Amino acid sequence: MEREITLNDTVALALGAGILGTGGGGNPYIGRLWLEQELKQRGGAVRIIDAGDVADDATVCSVGMMGAPTVSNEKLQEGGEFIRNIRALEQHVHASIEALVIGEIGGSNAIKPLVAGLQLGLPVVDGDGMGRAFPELQMDTFSIGGVSSSPMALSDDYGNVIIFHKLDSPKRAEQYARILTIEMGGSAALSMPVMTGVQMKTNIIRGTLTLAQRMGETVLTARRSNTEPSEAVAALGNGRVLFRGKIVDVERRTTQGFARGRLKLVAFGDPNDVMEIVFQNENLIAWHNGEIVCTVPDLICILSLEDGESVGTESLRYGLRVTVIGMPAAKELKTPKALAVVGPVGFGYPDVTFQPMLGNLL
Amino acid sequence: MEREITLNDTVALALGAGILGTGGGGNPYIGRLWLEQELKQRGGAVRIIDAGDVADDATVCSVGMMGAPTVSNEKLQEGGEFIRNIRALEQHVHASIEALVIGEIGGSNAIKPLVAGLQLGLPVVDGDGMGRAFPELQMDTFSIGGVSSSPMALSDDYGNVIIFHKLDSPKRAEQYARILTIEMGGSAALSMPVMTGVQMKTNIIRGTLTLAQRMGETVLTARRSNTEPSEAVAALGNGRVLFRGKIVDVERRTTQGFARGRLKLVAFGDPNDVMEIVFQNENLIAWHNGEIVCTVPDLICILSLEDGESVGTESLRYGLRVTVIGMPAAKELKTPKALAVVGPVGFGYPDVTFQPMLGNLL
Repeated sequence: MEREITLNDTVALALGAGILGTGGGGNPYIGRLWLEQELKQRGGAVRIIDAGDVADDATVCSVGMMGAPTVSNEKLQEGGEFIRNIRALEQHVHASIEALVIGEIGGSNAIKPLVAGLQLGLPVVDGDGMGRAFPELQMDTFSIGGVSSSPMALSDDYGNVIIFHKLDSPKRAEQYARILTIEMGGSAALSMPVMTGVQMKTNIIRGTLTLAQRMGETVLTARRSNTEPSEAVAALGNGRVLFRGKIVDVERRTTQGFARGRLKLVAFGDPNDVMEIVFQNENLIAWHNGEIVCTVPDLICILSLEDGESVGTESLRYGLRVTVIGMPAAKELKTPKALAVVGPVGFGYPDVTFQPMLGNLL
Repeated sequence: MEREITLNDTVALALGAGILGTGGGGNPYIGRLWLEQELKQRGGAVRIIDAGDVADDATVCSVGMMGAPTVSNEKLQEGGEFIRNIRALEQHVHASIEALVIGEIGGSNAIKPLVAGLQLGLPVVDGDGMGRAFPELQMDTFSIGGVSSSPMALSDDYGNVIIFHKLDSPKRAEQYARILTIEMGGSAALSMPVMTGVQMKTNIIRGTLTLAQRMGETVLTARRSNTEPSEAVAALGNGRVLFRGKIVDVERRTTQGFARGRLKLVAFGDPNDVMEIVFQNENLIAWHNGEIVCTVPDLICILSLEDGESVGTESLRYGLRVTVIGMPAAKELKTPKALAVVGPVGFGYPDVTFQPMLGNLL
């Protein structure tokens, strides 16, 4: 089923993508402004298709930004990076890309593929490879499902395009692209993996673009009625509110191409009721009074109590009043093979056991 | 005119390439062992052709190693890197590479293209892009002459191949390939530039492979007669002996992917007669008692007094008894455009004026 995304949808989409970003994926406001500008300049709308609409033998490709959100919020794109990436890959594989795929539905990376779709006149599939945002390249369902990371294209804002022709593992893709992204100034445009329709359909988490829009609409509805949206947002993702309180401490550094750090919150009216969260671009593990209450791949989302807007890890600061939502990960992230990559062990916490929240994101 | 390089030529070639390496280009002994092994295993010989033998519209490509010689002498290649690079580039540009070009005639990089020629069944052109060795990618006559650095291929020893599809300058090629080379362990196989026959013929320094062989044969002749070859070697390159003495101090560090440092020599019998040399993979500037006597792009070559073998910057050590030879650079390196890249200013010595030695290398 084909539908469209127009100027009427951008605000809700950005709000929802921010929530699913679990702190990362790039600030969705930046992506939203760009998408709105492209929609105004070109007229028209972004064509959204279901995964099932793509032919088995079609060639499709995912696009998004690589880098630390602390950088990408200030270092804007030149604008033609995705076009250059896709054209370079098409030349390299001697085939036309017929649809674009969202690599991660979280943050700005949910919206950038829509911009690229408009620029290239290509439809975008409703779904993504993470059902949230993750900091590293090997952490998507395509890589976990065995789709080769190569060829993959990386572009800077000066017109330089690099194609990774052969890569022996998704971890290698992450290693080499990360060092180049840092050299490119801390953020770069990435296009990978190039895959067939059937590879995409086998591995994609379906319907996450629609979920992001619905979450954003829930926030907008709550704003209109002056209510607090976190319960309703959590319910949409089959999750629950984990904590309400004030940020009292943030430790953050941009290192090795990531925004890494730790966050402390105190409940309203009870200074002994504390939540701590560690992050690597995205929120990874939440402790409530010393007990783990949520870990990757389940989603830990921080929303401003003021307006229900998500708070990225790059925007955390002392005094913010927030709710912390936990939502179960999509089922595709909870197989043993996936958990080895996107569970606590994949982030350097071998002693933390993943205790899944009940249910699935969708 | 086509000729061959066989097992009878490898010793002389390695000796001469070492001398023209001016301290860098990788240890030629490593390259020689590999070439000899390939010649023995495959039989046959390397076909050497003149630049003029290549058709104007042929596609040719240069190959060599990137990295610090301190690394590449210990971290050997897997062996198939050049094959993978050339095949990837052929797929990318939709053309067959018809001949290989030597990027730098100095050190191991003079010999590696011959190995690749054997592996791929391709002839190698007698000539190169430097008429010596230089540490950085933008420092060859092809780049200086305006040949695009892209597409270019870089391979590690695990089978990973990266193609630089578009690059906005040769300096960018250096910047991005260097950071990847470091991430690949400090040395990597490079293939660039891909060019037409006419681009190659317009820019190549002709006959340098033959010059390297003749220099090596001169050393071998001197060894047979128990004489010291440095005067005869210098004469072949239209240069002269600058100094004879003992190494009394070496300061060397492998940093940012290069072997950088400074060297001090004292003349035999006169402790006040001193030469100092700075290097970045290759020897850059020589001071004799405080006066500059030779600078890049002219060649500063250090030969062991023992056997006439060149001494790479990675092999410099206290107590070595050596001669220092100066030779004028090839005329292609002395145009104003070239000197801006390979003169002292290109190496971070804006206050040092290039005072060329008389004549040209060939």
